[in-house]
Amino acid sequence: MPTLPEPIIELTSALGKLPGIGPRSAERLALFLAQTEKDGVRVLAETLIRSRDAIDLCSICGALTEKQPCAICDDPRRDAFLVCVVERPTDILSLEKSGTFPGRYHVLGGRISPLDGVEPEDLRIAELEARIEKENIREIVLALSTDVEGDATSHYLAKRLAPQGVSVTRIAHGLPAGSGLEFADELTLSRALEGRRPME
Amino acid sequence: MPTLPEPIIELTSALGKLPGIGPRSAERLALFLAQTEKDGVRVLAETLIRSRDAIDLCSICGALTEKQPCAICDDPRRDAFLVCVVERPTDILSLEKSGTFPGRYHVLGGRISPLDGVEPEDLRIAELEARIEKENIREIVLALSTDVEGDATSHYLAKRLAPQGVSVTRIAHGLPAGSGLEFADELTLSRALEGRRPME
Repeated sequence: MPTLPEPIIELTSALGKLPGIGPRSAERLALFLAQTEKDGVRVLAETLIRSRDAIDLCSICGALTEKQPCAICDDPRRDAFLVCVVERPTDILSLEKSGTFPGRYHVLGGRISPLDGVEPEDLRIAELEARIEKENIREIVLALSTDVEGDATSHYLAKRLAPQGVSVTRIAHGLPAGSGLEFADELTLSRALEGRRPME
Repeated sequence: MPTLPEPIIELTSALGKLPGIGPRSAERLALFLAQTEKDGVRVLAETLIRSRDAIDLCSICGALTEKQPCAICDDPRRDAFLVCVVERPTDILSLEKSGTFPGRYHVLGGRISPLDGVEPEDLRIAELEARIEKENIREIVLALSTDVEGDATSHYLAKRLAPQGVSVTRIAHGLPAGSGLEFADELTLSRALEGRRPME
């Protein structure tokens, strides 16, 4: 029984490594590309390379950017004394979509996870300390993952940054908007209760 | 409000043109690639170009292949006098997965569709006639789509090939395997009734 030609198998395997592309989607994409004009595939491949080469990390905050510094660090209307700490560059995009944070950002590059071999010195914590000192930052808002490692990293940062006299806060954990109690797990509910605030 | 950097928007738009990749998947893929090592993206892009360049259409049947002729046309165990006509090269793969067709194939390259400007002379019908003559083909099995245009193309082919004295058959239309009457639409049911056969 003849199988797929070798180049299509190779292509399927390469595409299957992308996030959210399962084996069947990868094969469908590979067959689509195999039947696309050679020039069309070349244009796509060149777009991949050119776009990736044009993207860099902001030398100040670590965001994805095409210029140095990034648009947010370069924006005089943003509150320079308020900095939100996130794990990944894409977390900035999620927060920006909410359109409510007036300050700047700092990308850690991950969270402390001894099991995965990620120690504090692997993260951009020294850079954060230098920024607090140099930029006179007043408040650090921690917006890390709400799992065990995110919690541990938040506590580690709060303790480590304390001597610098900066105020360290953390975004609220609780019920997501548009949801009901019946959809929330126990941990979310217990955090929502802990974080209760007086009605205004 | 800063939006995504321009190269990521460009990448999202290029990826969004692939089949089955919606705007959100395209953005997620673009952000993943923007955070991947530059070398990794380059390897993927080169795989796209190299694989596409290595794939050609079989000069006899029109299947996707990396060598001429393709593995099926080159296989002496396949029945050379029995040829199945399909619309697209990938249709061959679907039929081969069933593992039941002992003959060879011929890719039409589409179906007659005057509304889309596809006329008989745009399809590989003359090539099929030449093969029937040269290869002494005994039976042509039509396996085109089961819609109006597929039907029209099948009837056109049956009429056009008749003078060559070749037997022209068509694969059965009816209930899909593992399904029940309640899931079948009216057209499928009427075709299943028309195509009824004596119990053996």
